[in-house]
Amino acid sequence: MTETDSGRLGMPVGEAMFSQRSIRKLRPDPIPTDDLHSIIEAASKAPNGGNRQPGRYVVLTEPELIREFGALYREAWWAKRRDEGHAWTTREAIPAEDAVHRGAAQLADEIANAPCIVLAFSTGKGQANSVLPGVQNLMLAARALGIGSVPTTLHPQVMDRVYELLSVPAEADFHLCIPLGYPRGNFGPTNRRPTAETTFFNGWDQPAPWAGE
Amino acid sequence: MTETDSGRLGMPVGEAMFSQRSIRKLRPDPIPTDDLHSIIEAASKAPNGGNRQPGRYVVLTEPELIREFGALYREAWWAKRRDEGHAWTTREAIPAEDAVHRGAAQLADEIANAPCIVLAFSTGKGQANSVLPGVQNLMLAARALGIGSVPTTLHPQVMDRVYELLSVPAEADFHLCIPLGYPRGNFGPTNRRPTAETTFFNGWDQPAPWAGE
Repeated sequence: MTETDSGRLGMPVGEAMFSQRSIRKLRPDPIPTDDLHSIIEAASKAPNGGNRQPGRYVVLTEPELIREFGALYREAWWAKRRDEGHAWTTREAIPAEDAVHRGAAQLADEIANAPCIVLAFSTGKGQANSVLPGVQNLMLAARALGIGSVPTTLHPQVMDRVYELLSVPAEADFHLCIPLGYPRGNFGPTNRRPTAETTFFNGWDQPAPWAGE
Repeated sequence: MTETDSGRLGMPVGEAMFSQRSIRKLRPDPIPTDDLHSIIEAASKAPNGGNRQPGRYVVLTEPELIREFGALYREAWWAKRRDEGHAWTTREAIPAEDAVHRGAAQLADEIANAPCIVLAFSTGKGQANSVLPGVQNLMLAARALGIGSVPTTLHPQVMDRVYELLSVPAEADFHLCIPLGYPRGNFGPTNRRPTAETTFFNGWDQPAPWAGE
């Protein structure tokens, strides 16, 4: 794949970043292989330590495999809620005002029907610094192609079974699980703190030049 | 800062990603504050767990502070080489064919003259998944503005002094150090393995559809 192929990702980088809302409601329509190829090529271009490129991607497209993985994902999602001490154990019991957990629980129910799921690993333990920038490239490239995504994690309770299901070698390290699909709903702006609250100049808690603007 | 501001980042996302070569040779020219603002806004838009936004950025622009930090960076770089078991202890002793270490050693010598250095932290320990995608946005936005960057790490040997120099609270976790500056030299394509070697479909070691193309 050559420079030409970056031309498929023609959306302005600012537009892609400023409208990369996490997409948890996915249509089942399949993603063309050419688009998956562009998305993975984009991921490969991200910086990584010493250009050792430890990132590995397992792309799930077979519906039966996605259903099996989806059951493990759903179990993992509820195991995380249990660890967090939440009392609710069904989606309906989550308070209506808790949109974050409601949306995530819906994804846990529906991920078994996603057209594609990418799991990001590294060849050895650790190495997040050399994998996660690539995952962000992957999600921005997906956004540029109209494909929604959301980075999610798993839970130790299911990890052995995920490794077995996908024949992942024990020395590989899991980082993120990224369902991909065309959105039901829209991309759009995200709700973030003002950067004047998260950015310091020349020392912690020292204001940015744009603070108070 | 509103949608309008994403318009400053007009480079196609594919072009930004495919030409984001790590830039280690920086010109000393200062970076306009408006550009730093755009770069940090871009970082803030990246996905993060539960929208808790633990990422914090400390931006160094004061030359005297950058010189002090640069001395610690240089010490850290050589401490990492010692840990790796390299025999050389001066830049001149690094074999000429080892371009990666030569370039990195040059950065360690020159970072004290960088016009800007960003250090990425999280408010608590861990949380790389919620910080590193933002760092990649930061570097892509810089690329779109003609500003070079490279993600680098530090070494435990200097960490206490870095935290003290920048008044970083003990509970914050350091992730990456990103020098920023206009490049001496060019952006351009990166040298990466074919994605057919790093990407598997529906199971580890199972070929991508584009393998063997």
